[in-house]
Amino acid sequence: MADAEYRLYYWPDIQGRGEFVRLVLEDAGAPYVDVARLPEDEGGGVPGLMACLARDDVGTANLAPPILQQGDLYISQTAAICAYLGERHGLAPEGDARWQALHLQLTLADFVVEIHDTHHPIAGSLYYEDQTAEAQRRTAVFREERLPRSLGYFERVLSLNKAAEGRWLVGADCSHADLSLFQVMTGLEYAFPNALSALADDHPRLFALRDRVRERPNIAAYLASERRIAFNELGIFRHYPELDATAVG
Amino acid sequence: MADAEYRLYYWPDIQGRGEFVRLVLEDAGAPYVDVARLPEDEGGGVPGLMACLARDDVGTANLAPPILQQGDLYISQTAAICAYLGERHGLAPEGDARWQALHLQLTLADFVVEIHDTHHPIAGSLYYEDQTAEAQRRTAVFREERLPRSLGYFERVLSLNKAAEGRWLVGADCSHADLSLFQVMTGLEYAFPNALSALADDHPRLFALRDRVRERPNIAAYLASERRIAFNELGIFRHYPELDATAVG
Repeated sequence: MADAEYRLYYWPDIQGRGEFVRLVLEDAGAPYVDVARLPEDEGGGVPGLMACLARDDVGTANLAPPILQQGDLYISQTAAICAYLGERHGLAPEGDARWQALHLQLTLADFVVEIHDTHHPIAGSLYYEDQTAEAQRRTAVFREERLPRSLGYFERVLSLNKAAEGRWLVGADCSHADLSLFQVMTGLEYAFPNALSALADDHPRLFALRDRVRERPNIAAYLASERRIAFNELGIFRHYPELDATAVG
Repeated sequence: MADAEYRLYYWPDIQGRGEFVRLVLEDAGAPYVDVARLPEDEGGGVPGLMACLARDDVGTANLAPPILQQGDLYISQTAAICAYLGERHGLAPEGDARWQALHLQLTLADFVVEIHDTHHPIAGSLYYEDQTAEAQRRTAVFREERLPRSLGYFERVLSLNKAAEGRWLVGADCSHADLSLFQVMTGLEYAFPNALSALADDHPRLFALRDRVRERPNIAAYLASERRIAFNELGIFRHYPELDATAVG
């Protein structure tokens, strides 16, 4: 591992936003160290992450994980890291279309904030249990308006991408945005199985993309490995049955 | 205006997220048409904006404004547009530091979501008046935790940027991220004058940067022009006195 090109700094016990970065690294087959998952006496654990956040000698200081380190370069913000890695590893379209891959990645990031805020509408610093009334109210709007809006948008983007015959979001091949869309679909399936299944028939390309990414060899190997952390109720995608819609039919 | 290189599609009556794009275009002196502010019979108004959102022939379809058009290229997402324009017009650092300008821009975008959600914690589709109880609760956390956290971060980034002696966020010169930070500081001053003034003494570089950007010739001319829309209670930065802290001292 001493030769790994990249070091990822992220919380060790959740998929969270770090997972979007892990998926690009894994699909690219890029050697990386997931620093906070190393033992503390090897510089890992949460102390290893905190030490990175506290560093004052890394160019632009970082506010929050995930952070990617490559030599002297430190980049934070999930979408920026995914775009950077995508462009270096053949997971971004050529030319100006790379800006469209970035805008898709950012639209996914907005959607992820909305998904997170279903269970934390008041404050990330409070427990879910301390904001359940507001969470119920916000999640009802999410299920009825925001979830169909976002899924409808990405289905439309797929249907219009003639370069890939609807298989990928932008350009002819898989990009970092497709890997992130896979993660969102997988996370929604965990958090809101009823609400998501009710929308399946109207979004065939989204579900096909999810399956297509899951079957990519490097992704399949990753998902079957111990490197893939299971979904849980500490991350972005949380399954609280009281927030999911009733099963249809 | 027929020769304008850029067309910006954004709501005509608010600064909103479009303002971050306008500031880059204005500082760069780049000729642009603010489409929705044209008369409807010239293709403007909200119908002009809606027609752009409905287009199926622009590569990647766009979900929401702002959208920048340059010839056949359409880019949405504020941070992506600002980075694109910044890199084309000398408002981004050279080399890999451009990724740090992007991550700063994205950290500002996250902060803008938090600012917006103080008055809309439940749903953007509901009126503020329909979510005032939740807004009070969320804004208390914002004032006590999130506002100091973000201002402290950007002050720290300035203090550590030796290339500019603390005058700019990244690199030796003004970048798109600095222009966006100016807009955030100006908006906070409008929305939360009491909460912001209580933090002024501890964040001298942030306030100096705000003044430094305001005095740039193209920005000063823009702010004095009719092109600058006034802050109002339809945008991101809203002044609801009941949400602002009591004046200190």
